[in-house]
Amino acid sequence: MVDYASVEAVLSHVDKTLDKAQERLFTLLRIPSISTQSQHAADCRRAAEWLRDDLKSCAMIAEVRDVRWAKPGNPMVVAHSTNHRDGKPHVLFYGHYDVQPTDPEHEWKTAPFDPQMAEDASGRKVIIARGASDDKGQVMTFLEACRAWKEVHGELPVKVSVLLEGEEESGGENLLPFLKENAEELKADVALICDTTMADRRTPAITTSLRGTVAEEVILSAATHDLHSGMYGNAAANPIALLCQALATLRDRDGRVTLPGFYEGVTVPDDATRAQWRRLFPSDEIFLEGTGLSIAAGEKGFSAVEQTWCRPSCEINGISGGYEDEGFKTVLPATARAKVSFRLVPGQNPDRIQEAFRQHIRQALPKDVKAEFISHGRSEGFAVAKSSQFLPATLKALSEEWSNEAVTVGSGGSIPVAGEVREALSMDALMVGFAQADDRIHSPNERYGLDSFHKGIRSWVRILAALSEK
Amino acid sequence: MVDYASVEAVLSHVDKTLDKAQERLFTLLRIPSISTQSQHAADCRRAAEWLRDDLKSCAMIAEVRDVRWAKPGNPMVVAHSTNHRDGKPHVLFYGHYDVQPTDPEHEWKTAPFDPQMAEDASGRKVIIARGASDDKGQVMTFLEACRAWKEVHGELPVKVSVLLEGEEESGGENLLPFLKENAEELKADVALICDTTMADRRTPAITTSLRGTVAEEVILSAATHDLHSGMYGNAAANPIALLCQALATLRDRDGRVTLPGFYEGVTVPDDATRAQWRRLFPSDEIFLEGTGLSIAAGEKGFSAVEQTWCRPSCEINGISGGYEDEGFKTVLPATARAKVSFRLVPGQNPDRIQEAFRQHIRQALPKDVKAEFISHGRSEGFAVAKSSQFLPATLKALSEEWSNEAVTVGSGGSIPVAGEVREALSMDALMVGFAQADDRIHSPNERYGLDSFHKGIRSWVRILAALSEK
Repeated sequence: MVDYASVEAVLSHVDKTLDKAQERLFTLLRIPSISTQSQHAADCRRAAEWLRDDLKSCAMIAEVRDVRWAKPGNPMVVAHSTNHRDGKPHVLFYGHYDVQPTDPEHEWKTAPFDPQMAEDASGRKVIIARGASDDKGQVMTFLEACRAWKEVHGELPVKVSVLLEGEEESGGENLLPFLKENAEELKADVALICDTTMADRRTPAITTSLRGTVAEEVILSAATHDLHSGMYGNAAANPIALLCQALATLRDRDGRVTLPGFYEGVTVPDDATRAQWRRLFPSDEIFLEGTGLSIAAGEKGFSAVEQTWCRPSCEINGISGGYEDEGFKTVLPATARAKVSFRLVPGQNPDRIQEAFRQHIRQALPKDVKAEFISHGRSEGFAVAKSSQFLPATLKALSEEWSNEAVTVGSGGSIPVAGEVREALSMDALMVGFAQADDRIHSPNERYGLDSFHKGIRSWVRILAALSEK
Repeated sequence: MVDYASVEAVLSHVDKTLDKAQERLFTLLRIPSISTQSQHAADCRRAAEWLRDDLKSCAMIAEVRDVRWAKPGNPMVVAHSTNHRDGKPHVLFYGHYDVQPTDPEHEWKTAPFDPQMAEDASGRKVIIARGASDDKGQVMTFLEACRAWKEVHGELPVKVSVLLEGEEESGGENLLPFLKENAEELKADVALICDTTMADRRTPAITTSLRGTVAEEVILSAATHDLHSGMYGNAAANPIALLCQALATLRDRDGRVTLPGFYEGVTVPDDATRAQWRRLFPSDEIFLEGTGLSIAAGEKGFSAVEQTWCRPSCEINGISGGYEDEGFKTVLPATARAKVSFRLVPGQNPDRIQEAFRQHIRQALPKDVKAEFISHGRSEGFAVAKSSQFLPATLKALSEEWSNEAVTVGSGGSIPVAGEVREALSMDALMVGFAQADDRIHSPNERYGLDSFHKGIRSWVRILAALSEK
């Protein structure tokens, strides 16, 4: 039993030492650990080593562990608490230290790896840097909570293990084999994952459903070399036009994905859940607030929040071909390429959807044009059992910290670890995060509210206490 | 009257001095006069000045003339012969000294502005460099023919004026106003344009029809910044997907362009012309030889050669949006853009087609997505009057040089000057060129056969003589 006074002492320590916590986060943010770009492999390792050393200062033993199953192979960080109360639940915390690329660079107002404290239009203090929100800021909320418990009471209220990944933004293909090989060491009573948002600025949330993903790159090759469009235009196959035609037909006029069998296994959430979401986002305009958009672009018959939280989708994330510079060039390019991702809900089969996509592209091509595919990862959708015994205590701790009732929400994002933890370690995962929808993650000028960071640390202090009462 | 012996003496001089002619061409090819990239403006001027000086050594007075009507404003080179036989026709020669960009750079086997002599697979000697064929090599065939006449006989057999443009590859918007303002000075009996191909390796050709062009860049803007596709995918408008849908519907399943009124004014060539073309290219495979393609990709019901020589078309010349680098990024980009060109035949109206295109794009967008357009030039299609008095003499001179009957052909390319010369100077234009379809113009490893260069010079020697008999 952790008494009220013990928790208050830790919270008070968090408040008094916030400056130092922020300095530590800034140090981590200065490391450009972009996992999808191989030239940053050494930076990824440096981030892992910095976290290992930081975990050691939080009453844990910690190691950097090499991975060997798939490229590029950024290491895992694994830690276990040494000083904790006995007979309490054992939690496994997960986060990732790798970040997204920073393009388009010129849209950043400050350098992406030179973190800055700034004020947004409303006067809210925000930390601006690539990874501030996704996921370094979120990871550090948990580490700082552990450090505060240790510094105030010399021990943690529950047994804590930590797993930090370095390839979450680049396919994460090493995670599942790593979990399986180290299942005995990593198995706990519940996983805590910090990589999600709150429902809004004032409403804390546990994310109980996630979309999976199928990420594909397709490269079309037509002529052996670029041709002059005056000399061959009309007669020679144009790979950009073929790519546009193939991609344009991935959705029908009602926004539904056209791949055969795509919606097999997809279920609609119950009316109570849909009603709760409607209260959070009474209109599509409100869901899209801050993006500059106002009209739900996906499947007809579903609201914007439903389109992202519970409906599968297909997006084109990148396209290129031909002359892309200043001016004009009347070229018929030899190749064109696109990056396409599907977001899946629980029940959909990533392997079948990948194959249906490839078949769709191949069928759209004449015989003298070839398609090549590169897989950038596949994962299933995920839903937490609403019966999880740790759910109510965690919701209660969050509600206390934020003085507002915590809710359960869905997420349109893919956090494969949730499903992989269940598959490899047979345990549930609670996704608790303090990010905001307008944190601009994956975009220029990514930011993390200082309130998210500060009250995030305080939330974990309370959650660890609450779980020790289980 | 130019006698046979006079011509033979000039031809023999051309043969003996070919090495020096080639050296001069290489010097010109070393100047990176890329007109569509503003950082090469000084190089364009350098090329103009070099040509001015070279023209002065060919019995001409020559000047570099600034242009002022449209950006980027690379100067014109204008020259007039000082020593020529009186009472003969007056010809205006046109070529352009600017070249296309060199991307993709890594596909060049030698540096694009370091010209090299090489042998192709068949043992044919070729000059490899950007602009070797389009259009510096072709321009120099005419200048060397003039030089040879002057060096052997001290004068040219007809009165010659020369106009060399520096913006042919970048819209050429200064040309028409320049022609109009200098109509009195530039008006001649016929224009000779050297920017086209032969019918095949052994068959010289005069191009009597050209396609015009409408070149457009479209930029779609959706969200105010890049979004995370997990957080907003499905609900937020994806400008790449919208662009693909809008571009994919520019043609129907039969390859016909769908813009309303697009085919208004389009006529089909007479049966004799189609039969002549069929003899040149008995199958689509033969027309597409060397490209790696084999299937006509355009309008059903027309052969590959008809699709490019006499049918209007629509091509996507460039597209970009979202994440285009190594790996994957689950981004919903804020913008996406494409470069689209239409090739027009005589009778089509470029202004109406530009407007129909813009309307087509706008209609494909939801209200919260904006389209912006940049025009990269418009020109009408062109056809030479088959009754032109200079046509038979020029065909005969070509047939003599190549020991093979010269033919009249169409071209899928756009050479706006032909129509502009007619509009501004009320005279016909004969398009005589020595390039080959596989010269890879606008592509990496552009080349110009040494035979094209050498026999091209000899052809002009004969044509100038033949025209002096008119």
